[in-house]
Amino acid sequence: MDQMPFQLTILGSSSATPTSERYPTAQVLNVLGQFFLIDCGEGTQHQIRKNNISLLKINHIFISHLHGDHFFGLIGLISTLELMGRKTDLHIYAHSELQKYTTSQIKYLKMEDLGYQLIFHPLNFKKPQTIFENKKIIVKSFPLNHRIDCCGFRFDEQKREPNIIKEQINRYNIPIRAIKDIKEGEDFVTETGNIILNSKLVKKPLKPRSYAFCSDTCYFEKIVEQIKKVDLLYHEATFAETEKKLAKKTFHSTAKQAAKIASLAKVKKLLIGHFSARYKDTKVLQNEARTIFRNSFAVRENKTYSIQLKK
Amino acid sequence: MDQMPFQLTILGSSSATPTSERYPTAQVLNVLGQFFLIDCGEGTQHQIRKNNISLLKINHIFISHLHGDHFFGLIGLISTLELMGRKTDLHIYAHSELQKYTTSQIKYLKMEDLGYQLIFHPLNFKKPQTIFENKKIIVKSFPLNHRIDCCGFRFDEQKREPNIIKEQINRYNIPIRAIKDIKEGEDFVTETGNIILNSKLVKKPLKPRSYAFCSDTCYFEKIVEQIKKVDLLYHEATFAETEKKLAKKTFHSTAKQAAKIASLAKVKKLLIGHFSARYKDTKVLQNEARTIFRNSFAVRENKTYSIQLKK
Repeated sequence: MDQMPFQLTILGSSSATPTSERYPTAQVLNVLGQFFLIDCGEGTQHQIRKNNISLLKINHIFISHLHGDHFFGLIGLISTLELMGRKTDLHIYAHSELQKYTTSQIKYLKMEDLGYQLIFHPLNFKKPQTIFENKKIIVKSFPLNHRIDCCGFRFDEQKREPNIIKEQINRYNIPIRAIKDIKEGEDFVTETGNIILNSKLVKKPLKPRSYAFCSDTCYFEKIVEQIKKVDLLYHEATFAETEKKLAKKTFHSTAKQAAKIASLAKVKKLLIGHFSARYKDTKVLQNEARTIFRNSFAVRENKTYSIQLKK
Repeated sequence: MDQMPFQLTILGSSSATPTSERYPTAQVLNVLGQFFLIDCGEGTQHQIRKNNISLLKINHIFISHLHGDHFFGLIGLISTLELMGRKTDLHIYAHSELQKYTTSQIKYLKMEDLGYQLIFHPLNFKKPQTIFENKKIIVKSFPLNHRIDCCGFRFDEQKREPNIIKEQINRYNIPIRAIKDIKEGEDFVTETGNIILNSKLVKKPLKPRSYAFCSDTCYFEKIVEQIKKVDLLYHEATFAETEKKLAKKTFHSTAKQAAKIASLAKVKKLLIGHFSARYKDTKVLQNEARTIFRNSFAVRENKTYSIQLKK
C-alpha cells in the first residue's frame, strides 16, 4: 500500500446519458489519506463501495455544476451516511442553488435530523478562489465555460519542509530549538562560531503533487493559467473531431481540444473522460488526443491513477 | 424470444444500505410487451440499460413507498428520458407527496419543459384499489404494513377469450356474425335447427398469469387475500430468523415470514429480496424460506423470471 498516496479513482466516465457500461461523472482523490469526492452522479455511492473506499472517510464533496449527471447521486449518499450513523461534518462545495435544492429534498424526506452537519460552501463562478486549505492540501476553484455556471478544481499538496540530515545534528551539536529555523532555510552557527551553510544541513523536500479537474467545458484557454504544470489533468472530451460543431454548440470539448489545453498548460499527464454514449470504444478519443499531447489516456472506470512522490 | 412474455427482471435486491454487489429495489415486469417499472432506487436507469430494456418502452412506474432506496433513481430517469426526446406520457403511481417532491426538484433543475407529461396517480394506503387497467392487464394496489405508508401491487393478465375451433366453423357453416356470441359462451344453432354445444366449438383459453409485489412490510396476514394464488409472488425478506426481533422493530420480514405468507396465499412460486447488507450469501434466507414454502428463491439481480402460459 502506498504510504503517501496521491491517487485518483475514476467512478464514472459517461456524459449526460449513461450507458450500460459507464456511470456518470464522479471521482475520488486520495491525498495522504484524505478523501475528496469530485462530482457525484447517480450511482456514486455504489461505485465508491465497489472500489473499497470507506464512505465515512469522505469529508469534502466538490460539485462542478448543477447538471443532473454531476450531482444526482448526492441525496442517496447523504441518506446512506445517515443510516451509517455519521457524526462528522460533511462539507459540500457547489453552486449556492444546491444548498436550497438539497435542503428542500431533506425537508420533503423528513430527514432534518441527519445526525451530522451538512456545510455548504458556495462557489465563485466569476474568478479563481481558494476554497479549502489545511496542512496537507490546498484546493482552488476556477471558472470553466459551459452552458451553465461551472467550476474546475485544482488540488495541490502543500510544500513540505526540508528534512534535516540526522548525522549533521550530532556532528554540529544542533539544539532542538534551532531546528525550526534551519528548516526554514537559515544557516547554523556552531558554539565556536563556525557558519554551517543550510544546504549542508538539509535534504531537499519531496515535490508537492497536483491534480486539476476540468469538468464540462468548451475549449477555453483562460483555464491554462489555473492548471499550469499539474502532474495530472482531467479534462472532459465528450466528442471526437468529427463532432467538433456539436461540441461547440453544447459547450463541450473534443479530445484534441482537451489535449491542446494540456499541452499549453505543460501538464505531465492528461486523462480524458465524460464520453458521449456514441463511443463504445474510447480508443478513438485517446488516439486523437495523443496526436496533440502524447501522454494522454482515456479514463477507465474503477481504475486508480497514482502520482508517485519525486525529488 | 417469448412471443407472449410475462417476465419479471430484477434490477435491485438490497435493503436501504446498498452494498457493492447489490442495487436498491427496482424491477421491470414485461406483460405481453408492456413494461412496468416497480420501484426505482438509485441506479435503476443504469440497470435497465444493462438488461437491454428500452427506457422509452416504460410508460408506467409504481413506487411502493417514499423511502429513498425505493425512488432516488426517479429524477435521473425522468431527466434521461428528456435527453432521449421522449414525447409519450409517463404515469407514476405513488404517494401524493412524491408529486410535490418531484415537481419541486424539476423546478429547481429548470426542467419544466420536459417535452412529455408526467402524470401522477396518488395511491390509497387505506384499502385495495384498481389503479390501472387496459385490454391486457389489470393492476391493483393494496396496503402493506411498514413504518410509513406503503403499498404492494398485483398485476393480473385479463381473461382471454376462448379460441374457436376452425374446423367446426367450416363443418357447421358458422357465419362471422355468430362468432362473437360463441366466444362469449353461447351454443350455435345450424340452418337445419341442430344445436351445437358451445363446448364442441371452442378451446378453453390460456389462463391469465399473475404477479404480486410486496415491498417493505412486516409480517402482515391481511395481504393474503390480495395476493391469493398468484403465479409469482415477490415478498421482502430483509432478515433471517436470528434477526426476528429486529425485523419486527423495523417493520420488515424474515424469510420464514415471507414463506408463511406465500403458503397461506397458496401462490405458485415465491421470490424473496430486499436483503440486509449483513447477508453476503443469501442462501441462508432461501433455505429458511424453503422450510416453510418449498418453491422459494432468493432473487438474483439481472435475472429474468418467466411465467409460461398454461391451459
